[in-house]
Amino acid sequence: MTASDAYVVGTGSALPGPPVDNAELARHFPVNAEWIERFIGTRTRHFAVDLATGEQRTGLAELAATAAGQALAKAGVEPDEVSFVVLGTASPDSLMPATVNLAADILGIDRVPTFQLQSGCAGAVQALETAMALLSPDRPLGLVIGGDVCAKHMDLRRGLGKLPPSELVNYAIFGDGAGAAVLSAQPAPGALAVRHVLNRFTGLGRPPGQVINWYGAAGRADGEQPVVEDYKAIEARVPVMAGEILWELLDRTGWDAGTISYLLPPQLSGVMTPRIVKELGLPGTVEVSVVAEVGNNGNALPFLQLDRLAEMVRPGERAVAVAVESSKWLKAGFTLEGV
Amino acid sequence: MTASDAYVVGTGSALPGPPVDNAELARHFPVNAEWIERFIGTRTRHFAVDLATGEQRTGLAELAATAAGQALAKAGVEPDEVSFVVLGTASPDSLMPATVNLAADILGIDRVPTFQLQSGCAGAVQALETAMALLSPDRPLGLVIGGDVCAKHMDLRRGLGKLPPSELVNYAIFGDGAGAAVLSAQPAPGALAVRHVLNRFTGLGRPPGQVINWYGAAGRADGEQPVVEDYKAIEARVPVMAGEILWELLDRTGWDAGTISYLLPPQLSGVMTPRIVKELGLPGTVEVSVVAEVGNNGNALPFLQLDRLAEMVRPGERAVAVAVESSKWLKAGFTLEGV
Repeated sequence: MTASDAYVVGTGSALPGPPVDNAELARHFPVNAEWIERFIGTRTRHFAVDLATGEQRTGLAELAATAAGQALAKAGVEPDEVSFVVLGTASPDSLMPATVNLAADILGIDRVPTFQLQSGCAGAVQALETAMALLSPDRPLGLVIGGDVCAKHMDLRRGLGKLPPSELVNYAIFGDGAGAAVLSAQPAPGALAVRHVLNRFTGLGRPPGQVINWYGAAGRADGEQPVVEDYKAIEARVPVMAGEILWELLDRTGWDAGTISYLLPPQLSGVMTPRIVKELGLPGTVEVSVVAEVGNNGNALPFLQLDRLAEMVRPGERAVAVAVESSKWLKAGFTLEGV
Repeated sequence: MTASDAYVVGTGSALPGPPVDNAELARHFPVNAEWIERFIGTRTRHFAVDLATGEQRTGLAELAATAAGQALAKAGVEPDEVSFVVLGTASPDSLMPATVNLAADILGIDRVPTFQLQSGCAGAVQALETAMALLSPDRPLGLVIGGDVCAKHMDLRRGLGKLPPSELVNYAIFGDGAGAAVLSAQPAPGALAVRHVLNRFTGLGRPPGQVINWYGAAGRADGEQPVVEDYKAIEARVPVMAGEILWELLDRTGWDAGTISYLLPPQLSGVMTPRIVKELGLPGTVEVSVVAEVGNNGNALPFLQLDRLAEMVRPGERAVAVAVESSKWLKAGFTLEGV
């Protein structure tokens, strides 16, 4: 959708614990640090679980509230001025209550509509679009959050040596974190105007590229794998989809590629992202990436990129963000302009 | 929010398998049919799991697609005319892909934005509000779906005799199903105009009334209960909240209570719902309830009520729907008028 009156007026980030580098990862899991450097390219990530003790030190609600608190502070907005809250996540703390409400509780926000979108990387962009649609003269300030915590899928008790490589690799790829943005119907100095947002399901008839299961009281069915990825399909399709998203976004926004200052590319891994950036071919742009330092923390990523972008962008400068969710092949992205 | 140009132009329902009455329930679980009749008041419900064999015969994606297909057919809308899809659920088939995309896949819908809201009963109303916000001249037709499937929490393998009564009662209260509505920016004969929608988090500082957990690869923590309800808090607070929602909705819509023809009350159980209706005190209205026949199937309920209402309402007649989510005390509801 196109909106001439939605502005990012504050951003925030939250990452649990100290960064975990590949050498430390290799001390806890049967993985090879050099192999990770070369084939995943992610140098550090943050986990809600303390690998040394197995204790979970924080949840998504706390991370979301921390990132949101930072965004509100930067925007100079009090919690009771927020008109609504939207959270995007693939890994809620529980199925009910929705984590967005627990985050609101921590922030001291009450008596406003809350929405939580279930999705992977595209969820952050869905949250942004939902917030833009909800902005109105009666609801001038939206709090938008994205985050993921993979603690429930980190099985530190099982014999990790018995895990297949396809499961072990997830410990090297993924990470935990949250990011947030305050969206306003009014511009402010240093704000980012949101020019166009794209969200599109393109998976008709296509098998999922990523499946993440959950289990209830009945437990896991025999032989069911909690996290399944089709890495070949991801490697083949994501760069193509990223290109399609980029060019459609520029076309819809009416921007020439030569006028773009910043590119926020899909954040799959430290190896995949540079490959995609190269294929996208926008040589004059500054790449804004975080995945090599924070890992793939899903719905947090676009907000972490936005948080970094907000420190650099000057009035009139243009940025394009591209996100791909391989689960059921969702295209997502948005265009921004410094005001 | 208030919208003068959002119309429900088609509705649909889907319930898995044959109705399961209390006598049959008592054959599979250590529950007493007469006790259920008297204290829960729910006579039948539908389950995605065949109690006799333990096999799951359908999932949320299939139910959502069936209900949506019905709604589209009634609206005379082809799947490729749909501008976007919004699904509300507390029990997605998997965490990724979001079930809304699998439902779109079954329906043959492609290349549109899809959104999935994570919530309990209030999720259906959140989905409706999100869809209304997304409606625009470029996006004139939204497909809105709500549904829940409790199969993953139906533990038929464990010794059921050992379950505490607080867990056993869930088998009598809950059920599975989905409902759907086609939302249009244009009126049509027999349509329902949506006059006002209310969604509000009111749980600041209040402990949750209902918690539903999920588990990943790491499994369930020792002693953790999958579904926890504070029935005393629910019994005490839900009727009060229902009254507050009703009167605020009427006030915001500018309607006098005496002009209301239909009441769609909260659908907790066959015993709780009549109690709430009595306390709400709208003697001239027709109650539109489904819970005694379908059980508490969460996000499906408001759509199933809407599906029933659509068959009765005549031009100019007014209806009020009230929903309460006790998880973190969410208020929800909407007002409708026959056109």
